[in-house]
Amino acid sequence: MNWLDEIKWTEDGLVPAIAQDAETGEILMFAWMNRESLALTVARGEAVYWSRSRGRLWHKGEESGHVQKVAEIRVDCDKDVVLLKIEQKGGIACHTGRRSCFYFRLEDGQWVPVAPVLKDPDRIYRK
Amino acid sequence: MNWLDEIKWTEDGLVPAIAQDAETGEILMFAWMNRESLALTVARGEAVYWSRSRGRLWHKGEESGHVQKVAEIRVDCDKDVVLLKIEQKGGIACHTGRRSCFYFRLEDGQWVPVAPVLKDPDRIYRK
Repeated sequence: MNWLDEIKWTEDGLVPAIAQDAETGEILMFAWMNRESLALTVARGEAVYWSRSRGRLWHKGEESGHVQKVAEIRVDCDKDVVLLKIEQKGGIACHTGRRSCFYFRLEDGQWVPVAPVLKDPDRIYRK
Repeated sequence: MNWLDEIKWTEDGLVPAIAQDAETGEILMFAWMNRESLALTVARGEAVYWSRSRGRLWHKGEESGHVQKVAEIRVDCDKDVVLLKIEQKGGIACHTGRRSCFYFRLEDGQWVPVAPVLKDPDRIYRK
């Protein structure tokens, strides 16, 4: 069986994808993939997601230059979640200009941002 | 605003949750939470998920003893994905008896299991 057919896609034809720094283990972002984006990810060696909000393929870094070089691809026991071990170009995965999207920590019943903005988003996306 | 109200729940009232080893950074599993399970996770200091297949709260480790002690809880920039940094009791997160659920690696177009079974599932769940 084709490795893509083994994935348990949702009814919408998607699978959750976690991007993890291949060196440090830091979790950088979470997004969704469809069949085409996962096939493209393998073909290019760079993460390609499916943007649910924009309804189109999203080659991560296409605007920002912050592409994700794929070192390894894994799936879980149920083959319904993808894990990408990546090298994050530019050191910034989050659209807020932070290294990781997971920068809110729960502290005493509040979500507290605990990671610095490394680059102003207006400079990343040249609005 | 209550920290639970800040979470962007899906239409089904769920949020994806990633469990990561707080010490090593290894990603151990992926599951879903509803509002009650996330509140219980904080109250108990142990991961409680929502089992979509069983349609009920799932206190991870309730059968196996492999509970997950929560060291830290994060959400991402959109507040629609939860990250738990945990200590995995028993050293086994996966129902297959492996440390992590993410044990299939893509190698030359095939999903190859690359992590050992540490304990026979029949012995974990005492069928």
